[in-house]
Amino acid sequence: MSRTRVTSFAISLDGFGTGEPQTRETPFGHAGERLHEWMFATRWWRGANEPGGSRGVDDAFARQFEPGIGAEIMGANKFGPPGWHEDPDWKGWWGPNPPFHTPTFVLTHHAREPIEMEGGTTFYFVEGTPQEVLEQVREAAGGKDVRIGGGATIIRDFLSAGLIDHLHVVQVPILLGRGSRLWDGLEGLEKDFDVEAVTSPSGVTHLTFTRTEG
Amino acid sequence: MSRTRVTSFAISLDGFGTGEPQTRETPFGHAGERLHEWMFATRWWRGANEPGGSRGVDDAFARQFEPGIGAEIMGANKFGPPGWHEDPDWKGWWGPNPPFHTPTFVLTHHAREPIEMEGGTTFYFVEGTPQEVLEQVREAAGGKDVRIGGGATIIRDFLSAGLIDHLHVVQVPILLGRGSRLWDGLEGLEKDFDVEAVTSPSGVTHLTFTRTEG
Repeated sequence: MSRTRVTSFAISLDGFGTGEPQTRETPFGHAGERLHEWMFATRWWRGANEPGGSRGVDDAFARQFEPGIGAEIMGANKFGPPGWHEDPDWKGWWGPNPPFHTPTFVLTHHAREPIEMEGGTTFYFVEGTPQEVLEQVREAAGGKDVRIGGGATIIRDFLSAGLIDHLHVVQVPILLGRGSRLWDGLEGLEKDFDVEAVTSPSGVTHLTFTRTEG
Repeated sequence: MSRTRVTSFAISLDGFGTGEPQTRETPFGHAGERLHEWMFATRWWRGANEPGGSRGVDDAFARQFEPGIGAEIMGANKFGPPGWHEDPDWKGWWGPNPPFHTPTFVLTHHAREPIEMEGGTTFYFVEGTPQEVLEQVREAAGGKDVRIGGGATIIRDFLSAGLIDHLHVVQVPILLGRGSRLWDGLEGLEKDFDVEAVTSPSGVTHLTFTRTEG
């Protein structure tokens, strides 16, 4: 059965998935790269062109990004900096071959034509409730899982709507103080999930929420 | 040297140290006892009168509550429910022999005479900035450490003032959604501390912030 998954979504101890302000030069605002250093240090991230990298728990979780995923849904603020919709040539942060390699749906009020990139990624621009969008995206995923790619607001919306089956959050021991917060308004979320936490020698804590069967 | 310490302060995943509303019947509001179940399950908590209890990491941390402490500072909301100062007979939640066994200072705008309890606890009622109060309390601690006992607001105030040497927070995997939040307004706190995280089989994550030497 096709599940809805969040993989390796990083937040600060105070719950922010990004800092502020988000600009073309600083996609994560004042957080910089600090929320993702644990991932850059993994064998998985380094890939074929760079030696070394950790092969422990951080690497094991990071590797769950791609397998089994048939499509991604992301928020408008993940696709580009504020105002990207006014630039007809904006094609995301990721260069000609984005790391998604599947149909990738951007939730936005500013419709535009799909953009076909190299490597299997096609960006579609859609609007609607989480339920409506998920229904459409599940078809595009061809029976595989749908990744909810962030940012914090989109993940929170899908959690509130009860549409996430598996949530993997990486808590980084820094305090950002401001930005976009993941956990607001989710009282009692844990009741529908099996929750696990495990710390890594890198200092981060991996939290997994797996929807309880039945 | 006398240090200022926070021991076993429990928060939810979304950072709340207590729920709401706080009343005489519900000192932690809608959180109930859920933030402290990990502690009730320890050998240390059960004490001489109750058998069993965990002897692992939760127990090791819980046992740091008393040794080396010469005095406690607590906020008015820890001492009693809203309006306690209008009740001249209110002596805290803890019965005739409170678990502090040292001079214990309640930060409040409502001065009253000290209350001497059994077992070494005397409640003093004081007012002032964190710096002023800490200076006074250090003397009462007789060279030992000072515990900052909570709630979240008081700990946050002392952290903001740079007055905490060791912070031990226990993150419980529940989402409270509302209450009194620990982490607000503490951007960059980690820069002055060595931070560790360790998870327990009970499901909680122990976070320690130890002020960097020099």
